[in-house]
This record gives sequence, structure tokens and C-alpha cells, in this order.
Amino acid sequence: MTKGKKSNSGRYAYEGLDRVIHEKARLGIITSLSTHPEGLLFNDLKELCTLTDGNLSRHLQILTEAGLVEVWKGFKNNRPQTLCRLTTEGKRRFLDYVAVLESVVADAMTPVAETSPKLGLST
Amino acid sequence: MTKGKKSNSGRYAYEGLDRVIHEKARLGIITSLSTHPEGLLFNDLKELCTLTDGNLSRHLQILTEAGLVEVWKGFKNNRPQTLCRLTTEGKRRFLDYVAVLESVVADAMTPVAETSPKLGLST
Repeated sequence: MTKGKKSNSGRYAYEGLDRVIHEKARLGIITSLSTHPEGLLFNDLKELCTLTDGNLSRHLQILTEAGLVEVWKGFKNNRPQTLCRLTTEGKRRFLDYVAVLESVVADAMTPVAETSPKLGLST
Repeated sequence: MTKGKKSNSGRYAYEGLDRVIHEKARLGIITSLSTHPEGLLFNDLKELCTLTDGNLSRHLQILTEAGLVEVWKGFKNNRPQTLCRLTTEGKRRFLDYVAVLESVVADAMTPVAETSPKLGLST
């Protein structure tokens, strides 16, 4: 189809942008957990990410099923609490994801007009 | 609900992560267009982002309806071609988006355990 651009094929496909992590709400959840290695209580996480109970629960389920997050039930001041934190696998995959994110930012900062389609536009 | 954390409320909500731009395929499309100010031909864009005709068309429609991308019909070597490029509004909103992306990367790089929930876990 296109000529002489084989080397750039998929240049902006960003395969490493794992959709489990990339979804906006989950990206907030994972980033906040990554900055709190000891874990975060459900209610604190909810507030930090401005999510509803239902939304946070749903995303935590997806993240635990993907093996990125672990959820612990416990007590604090005799009240039941839920503690959420990243798994080792979650930390690793988030670092991989962030590396791709950095490359997106780098790409966005370096415009290169190697392709200038000289078109006769039919306006 | 939570006590004394008002200032951090929504800290990881990342409201600026505009979902029109954030979706993985569209992020690739917009980043590649941002690096090619002259615009890209449909087929080149398709290859750079590893998308099918149908997928690229669908995402371009969403992006044009949002006012971020403009699509031009024209001819090159007597063959009909489609040229895609960012609008001024698209460039502006992408820069805003990238600024938020940079803050996500910065957040991910600076773990701060200001919240250490000392739980009595019921293992």
C-alpha cells in the first residue's frame, strides 16, 4: 500500500499501553496506589480518585482479576475496612506502562514532518 | 467520611485526561498527527497506528466531530486520497492533555507513603 515506510509501521500503535491500566479511572487508581506502597483504604482511594463506591468496586474487581491489585479485608477502630494495594506484578506492569507513556510524551514533544503529502486538494 | 485529607481530594482523578484523546487508538492517531504538522494520508496514518480501515475511519469520525481533526479529500497521482491533520483546537487540547500525562508520569515516579493505614488485618 504505502511505499518505503516499512520501518515506521506501527510507530504510533503504542502496543504497550495496556488497556487494563490505560482506562482513565484505573490509571488514577493504580497511580495513587503506586505512590502509596503501604496500600490505601477503600474510602481514601475513592476520595483521591473522585469515584463512587460502585465505580471503584467495579474497577478494583477488574484490577484484581488481572492480578495487578490485591484487596484485603480488616478492621480499624473496630470498623471493617478494605485495604487495596498493588501486587508485585502490578508494580512491574505499571512501570512498563509508564515507560510507554513517557515515549508518548516524548513523541508529542518532537514534531518531525518527514511525511509531507504534497496534495492537489480538491477544495 | 475520611478525615483531614480534604486537600488531596481528587488528587488522582486526572480530570484533564480527556477521554476523546485518551482512548489508546485515538492517542496514537493524534500523537502521529501532532508529529506531522503537514498532515498524514489515511493509508500512512493507518500503517503508523496499525489500525484497520474501519477502525481508523470510526476514530477519525469521533475526532472530527469533537473538532480535533480535519479531513481533506484530494488527489495524488490521479488517485483520490484523504489527508488528515490536527486542527488548531486539536493541537491546543492535545498539549493540555500531554501536560496531564506528564503529571501522571511524575506522580508515578515519586512514591510518597503519606498514608500508612495501620490495619489489624483479619487474614
